[in-house]
Amino acid sequence: MAEKEVRNKQLVLRDYVTGFPKESELYVTSNGTIKLKLEGDSKRVLVKNLFLAADPHLRPLMKKADNLSVLQSFTPGLPLYGYGVAKVVDSRHPDFEEGDFVWGITGWEEYTIISSFEHLFKIQHSDVPLSYYAGILGMPGLTAYSGFFEVCDPKKGEHVFVSAAAGGVGQLVGQYAKLMGCYVVGSAGSKEKVDMLKDKFGFDEAFNYKEEHDLEAALKRYFPQGIDIYFDLVGGKMLDAALVNMRVHGRIGVCGVISQLTLKEPEALKNAMCLVYKRVRMQGFNVVDYYHIYPKFLDLLLPQIREGKISCLEDIVEGLENGPHALIRVFSGHAIGKQVVSVANE
Amino acid sequence: MAEKEVRNKQLVLRDYVTGFPKESELYVTSNGTIKLKLEGDSKRVLVKNLFLAADPHLRPLMKKADNLSVLQSFTPGLPLYGYGVAKVVDSRHPDFEEGDFVWGITGWEEYTIISSFEHLFKIQHSDVPLSYYAGILGMPGLTAYSGFFEVCDPKKGEHVFVSAAAGGVGQLVGQYAKLMGCYVVGSAGSKEKVDMLKDKFGFDEAFNYKEEHDLEAALKRYFPQGIDIYFDLVGGKMLDAALVNMRVHGRIGVCGVISQLTLKEPEALKNAMCLVYKRVRMQGFNVVDYYHIYPKFLDLLLPQIREGKISCLEDIVEGLENGPHALIRVFSGHAIGKQVVSVANE
Repeated sequence: MAEKEVRNKQLVLRDYVTGFPKESELYVTSNGTIKLKLEGDSKRVLVKNLFLAADPHLRPLMKKADNLSVLQSFTPGLPLYGYGVAKVVDSRHPDFEEGDFVWGITGWEEYTIISSFEHLFKIQHSDVPLSYYAGILGMPGLTAYSGFFEVCDPKKGEHVFVSAAAGGVGQLVGQYAKLMGCYVVGSAGSKEKVDMLKDKFGFDEAFNYKEEHDLEAALKRYFPQGIDIYFDLVGGKMLDAALVNMRVHGRIGVCGVISQLTLKEPEALKNAMCLVYKRVRMQGFNVVDYYHIYPKFLDLLLPQIREGKISCLEDIVEGLENGPHALIRVFSGHAIGKQVVSVANE
Repeated sequence: MAEKEVRNKQLVLRDYVTGFPKESELYVTSNGTIKLKLEGDSKRVLVKNLFLAADPHLRPLMKKADNLSVLQSFTPGLPLYGYGVAKVVDSRHPDFEEGDFVWGITGWEEYTIISSFEHLFKIQHSDVPLSYYAGILGMPGLTAYSGFFEVCDPKKGEHVFVSAAAGGVGQLVGQYAKLMGCYVVGSAGSKEKVDMLKDKFGFDEAFNYKEEHDLEAALKRYFPQGIDIYFDLVGGKMLDAALVNMRVHGRIGVCGVISQLTLKEPEALKNAMCLVYKRVRMQGFNVVDYYHIYPKFLDLLLPQIREGKISCLEDIVEGLENGPHALIRVFSGHAIGKQVVSVANE
């Protein structure tokens, strides 16, 4: 009677990471097995993972939690977890059935039993590539959308700056800004990325922050009249430089602090006084507070994607074994576009 | 036919101030005269100044403008300007007539010709002391009201922290918070002020920040569950300590940066990352953006004041000659309650 057990390959954290994470701090194990049938009555869903998103927010979860973080760190010896796309193999939940495609928080492994449904969405539209639900139609897409439209409150013609603009979120914010009729400038860390922002994603301007010794002056050059909206994905020195360049009544959406994660001590902000002098609103946010607008987001995005008006660049690597490499590429800024790990075919 | 000229005593800035301002950097001159009749047709109002508010925001205007400030500095050799209460002596403006009482931006002098009306309000209710329009019913009152209700978005039962709580704005924020059914803690710089916050203004708790070597720990003591709203009047180290103690979805209304004005280099913020981890909104604001809600504010405040439910502590000094002393008292934190200079009787 017992259902056959199958191998469940997993990507596991070796131990809490200090400093910059290395590939060797993660390993893949094939020791585990899993039954492909759920037992008992508690609400759970068993999924086969198809795509896993190598998202920058996974980085701080590899460290032992400090008093600043409200997110739960990974547990050494257990697989990572994060956003991904999966297919339901068995379900004890009325909203999901075998064969459904879903996106949301799952494990970095071949099969996962999901028992918390706050972060799980059924995929209703599969005429677009499923991998999009790990990027433009998933968490990064909704993050960009909610951060730009709900937090930054854009108006036509406003001047928008996006940092880490070539990443999975940044490239979308720039495109949303263009859809709104804004002027948009992005910063990124290589010539290749800068070219991509202008040529592929329609940014009005872009610059390589590594070539600017004075970020304040760089922003002044691109925004002689000041910045209305700064979509901040990096924190630190760039945020400080943007503060000085904000226009009166400007808005800063603080989405991430990538630049700070490698540092022992975060870079301190010297220009916070600009908030009051320029009457600027600066708001930290997280996509989890915007799940309820996902349907509205899909209504806007799906037609734009089908018509090719909004595009996304994916970088899909095959196999869980390449997960560590993919993650370190993202953390070190070497990924171009949305880095996704393909775990299995449907 | 020519109208008689009268003396117009003025409080003048000697030269741009560097470092902490001294009384000697201001002087009173009686050399000027003014005709008590307006000539020509341009829209102007001639007022006799009654009360001038020694507001903390005047301090940075004594310095030569730096690139951070959007406010206009005072001009050496000319009188200071700021919020005050006055009586109309002559008017070439249809909304004002001789005998009206007004509050708004005027000169630190006996008589002022006002030609910009954005910052001028006619006083409709004179059953309360006129000096209140330099404090609780004027700019500081509206600042506290708009900052607390419009920017900080308070909800019943929330935990509120106010810095510089004994000042003209802070003492009102604390009282508004109590009206809303919030728990409110204030910080101030002396035992006398701390006692006043608890005994006179109904703060739940108050502490002397000068006696705390660890502000983060002090706030943790008063807010073991975290701060929902921080009404920031000081910036710097206190803001940094509050950031760490914010609750998820907390709001910080940034109203002033008193603590930073004495420093050559502003204290940098180390904990800005909390904005994203805690999804906190931090907003700089200025009362000028809220003039349109002044009628709503009066509707709420006047009954509360008449019934004694909201009170204010004034410290009125007599005579323009005492202006420099009053200003330095405010800048150095020695004023208790709203410092006002009485220039003339009606």
